[in-house]
Amino acid sequence: MMQIPLSVGSMMEHAEQFFPKKEVISQTHDKLHRLNYGEIGQRTRRLMSILNEMGIRQGNRVGTLAWNHHRHLEIYFAAPGMGAVLHTINIRLSPEDIIYIINHAEDKILFIDEDILPLIEHIHTHLTTVEAFVVMTDKADLPESSIQPLYSYEELISTGDPLYAFAANIDENQPAGMCYTSATTGKPKGVIYTHRGIVLHSFALGLADTAAISESDVSMPVVPQFHVNAWGTPFACTWFGSTQVMPGPRFTPKRLAEFIERFKVTITAGVPTIWLGLLRELEQGNYDTSSLRAVLCGGSAAPIGLIRAFEEKHNIPFYHAYGATETTPLATISRLKSYQQTITQEEKFEERARQGILVPGLQMKVISDQGEVEWNGKDMGELLLRGPWIANEYYKDERSNDAFKDGWFHTGDVVTVDEEGTIKIVDRTKDLIKSGGEWISSVELENAIMAYEPVFEACVVAIPDDKWQERPIACVVLHEGFEGKVKKEDILAFLAAQFPKWWLPDDVLYFDEIPKSSVGKFLKRELREQVRERFSIQE
Amino acid sequence: MMQIPLSVGSMMEHAEQFFPKKEVISQTHDKLHRLNYGEIGQRTRRLMSILNEMGIRQGNRVGTLAWNHHRHLEIYFAAPGMGAVLHTINIRLSPEDIIYIINHAEDKILFIDEDILPLIEHIHTHLTTVEAFVVMTDKADLPESSIQPLYSYEELISTGDPLYAFAANIDENQPAGMCYTSATTGKPKGVIYTHRGIVLHSFALGLADTAAISESDVSMPVVPQFHVNAWGTPFACTWFGSTQVMPGPRFTPKRLAEFIERFKVTITAGVPTIWLGLLRELEQGNYDTSSLRAVLCGGSAAPIGLIRAFEEKHNIPFYHAYGATETTPLATISRLKSYQQTITQEEKFEERARQGILVPGLQMKVISDQGEVEWNGKDMGELLLRGPWIANEYYKDERSNDAFKDGWFHTGDVVTVDEEGTIKIVDRTKDLIKSGGEWISSVELENAIMAYEPVFEACVVAIPDDKWQERPIACVVLHEGFEGKVKKEDILAFLAAQFPKWWLPDDVLYFDEIPKSSVGKFLKRELREQVRERFSIQE
Repeated sequence: MMQIPLSVGSMMEHAEQFFPKKEVISQTHDKLHRLNYGEIGQRTRRLMSILNEMGIRQGNRVGTLAWNHHRHLEIYFAAPGMGAVLHTINIRLSPEDIIYIINHAEDKILFIDEDILPLIEHIHTHLTTVEAFVVMTDKADLPESSIQPLYSYEELISTGDPLYAFAANIDENQPAGMCYTSATTGKPKGVIYTHRGIVLHSFALGLADTAAISESDVSMPVVPQFHVNAWGTPFACTWFGSTQVMPGPRFTPKRLAEFIERFKVTITAGVPTIWLGLLRELEQGNYDTSSLRAVLCGGSAAPIGLIRAFEEKHNIPFYHAYGATETTPLATISRLKSYQQTITQEEKFEERARQGILVPGLQMKVISDQGEVEWNGKDMGELLLRGPWIANEYYKDERSNDAFKDGWFHTGDVVTVDEEGTIKIVDRTKDLIKSGGEWISSVELENAIMAYEPVFEACVVAIPDDKWQERPIACVVLHEGFEGKVKKEDILAFLAAQFPKWWLPDDVLYFDEIPKSSVGKFLKRELREQVRERFSIQE
Repeated sequence: MMQIPLSVGSMMEHAEQFFPKKEVISQTHDKLHRLNYGEIGQRTRRLMSILNEMGIRQGNRVGTLAWNHHRHLEIYFAAPGMGAVLHTINIRLSPEDIIYIINHAEDKILFIDEDILPLIEHIHTHLTTVEAFVVMTDKADLPESSIQPLYSYEELISTGDPLYAFAANIDENQPAGMCYTSATTGKPKGVIYTHRGIVLHSFALGLADTAAISESDVSMPVVPQFHVNAWGTPFACTWFGSTQVMPGPRFTPKRLAEFIERFKVTITAGVPTIWLGLLRELEQGNYDTSSLRAVLCGGSAAPIGLIRAFEEKHNIPFYHAYGATETTPLATISRLKSYQQTITQEEKFEERARQGILVPGLQMKVISDQGEVEWNGKDMGELLLRGPWIANEYYKDERSNDAFKDGWFHTGDVVTVDEEGTIKIVDRTKDLIKSGGEWISSVELENAIMAYEPVFEACVVAIPDDKWQERPIACVVLHEGFEGKVKKEDILAFLAAQFPKWWLPDDVLYFDEIPKSSVGKFLKRELREQVRERFSIQE
């Protein structure tokens, strides 16, 4: 067979050749843009020629601090397309972390959304490697700024070469992208994505039994482009010629609902928090969501009540998926097998609340202290993953040794696996509650509590206990109007029917809000500190 | 990213882990077998251990002369799974060609169906490298034979190790399979398939916009397993957990129709001749074919009447695909784009009669003497292909230089490409008719003639002409009952409305049968000789 490298640039070339009329619909601060892949391809080529003129070479990191829009998509292809590295930076991190990330990755150029310019004004004197800043805006004039040199994206590419070629000498194992993931302790950790990893992951997203991304799709990723490449959907959707809808800066649930109706979105992807918000919007407004064939949900486990609401109330198919920054990210997806179609509706929801089976191309095993666990739906162990789109290290980081051992990525997620090979996340290894020598899953308790009507969100953390080592405490946010009307005993009684007595939380604390990470996950470490403060427990 | 090789063995491991209950339904000479992937996996492992005991090592060629059945499927995974090479041999070739192929590939062991044993009896003294022969049969005793040593497949694997591991040290660029393709002149030419090529091609078969092979499918490849790995479907279907139905030795259209109804087949693949036969059967019998979601047709261009009959009369979606032994084979597939759904029914059939757009992962260009042709649906040129599942040479064969030039595979197929990037095969480079300095497409004339009700098959070839250089002659087989009732003038009048006058054949000759190759394609070279004899033309 021919030795043709798998490359990100060739995916855009395919879109230019076979889907030039298909559109990218992109909301920026100022307006809604509609560009087709013919135009996006030319703009990508112009951008490559400008990057080349500005001295960007193979392997150089090209940083972005940006929302989901078409210019961000163009950098997705231009940077790797010329052999450089797309480095998406999480705009919701602290200024300190952002400084660390940019310096650690040695970004040579930064592409910034206009509303992020004040942040960069604030930190730019700490950046040690950046040689140029480019603002992405529709406005003719750039804002006043102390940053130098500062360019306008549109002005730059207007002089670029629309026929500039994608680099022909790509090694498929060279870096195409990178993304930093928050760590429980210490600075964020960098993950490198190779051309090979991104192309194989895109194939996986197009499979009929995974996300089945197709030319006929209208895809609106709500997951940010600064977070694991928006789960890889911009790459796959471009390759397969889907229409893409990019909801832009600071979107609201209302904008998402409106865009779904207006652009007949067929597939969307995001974290449970987003879907809780959208659900509330759908219940208030009167939206036509009949075009939606799939809501993909990942990042953290979705409560069964959320899945049920989407499927039963709104007739929107809801798919749980699982992955991590280190896994590009798609690793498992929940779909019923053909012979499971005859199970009851309730059993289907139970199955849908699991994270699904492994995507073709990857390998998994689940280990406890006793070795590989049995696939019986009960035994818990840590999930280990292996495959061509799984990271093998953190970029220049000694913590690599903890997570990458014996050729496997140790996910830190505790799962059960049933006879069908379906995994269910029961906890993070460090959030499992060890009580009387047994494990209690904080996630299972949370999901059960969130199924209780008056509860909006629930998070369960451990407090130290002299007798039992650790005991669970439930932290609960109630729906509006229920404050002061729900007793601790009500919640415990609701749980008593589903769990052994020793699993029941020792206390229920009410909160206005559960602290969350920049990507919408519960910040259990922070919550644990708040709980310990309330109980006056010393660390 | 981890350096994990793409390997054929890992596809079977995935099926064992995630689809152990799903079945392979296999018709042999004696009975219908039903085995699940748990069992198929164990039998594959037993076979690997036996091959190892028999001295088969990495890189050794394992030959098969067999129909479509589960034992053949097991060898598909066992040979590459242990690092050896699956070499499927076309049982319909001449004994001389089969001897050449086995000796040229240096097969070390041969797996033979029981009805093929007489052929091997006839030729085995000419085989220079084969050390052992294995007969695949359900019978307890082997037939009397002069071949030595001769083993029984079931007896051998009964002592094998069901836990034997797939080779861990696979290089994804090492050969996994090989297949010889007939040449217009000279001996058949060998094509090597690598692990990488087969896995990437399997990904391509699973994409929502190509064959969309899924766990929920019941797949019955009619294309033989000895022909380009049954178009790769046994690999993809196993990986994705589809139920597989293998119609076994010397099947009839009746058996195909019965199996479709009985096993609720959802997808099937084969050449136009097979579908012409099935169509006749469907029109005679009363079969329920409502389970079929896709009939894939390749190998040669299907006449529009055939497509129309499947879709309009039987409501069976019919997809044209294109490829070659050198392309693993899937290169293009015909699917309407989302914005083409509004065209008229007639336009859809026109579109469906084209071979479709390029599968993601490949590159194409179309060249004539003037360079790359315009994508206007009219200009003709030779199709060139490039990509990780396109061959880069013929195995130990000097003819490689003709077909593989400048990094492209020169298909020898003449196509037009329209604005959508959809190709249409208009001829083989060597079958194009050059008349008065212009090209006439023999295939377009054939398809037009076959759309004429009384015509069953039509083939158009050139005869030399002093004035025009070449002129077309139509060779026609009429449907039963029409013999002697259709005049040359009727056919030419039917064509006159569709083509310029100078395209019309100079004569129409009637035949009982058009000579066909072992895989059902018109043998134009042989037909051309017969035509020249009738006209007493000297070569």
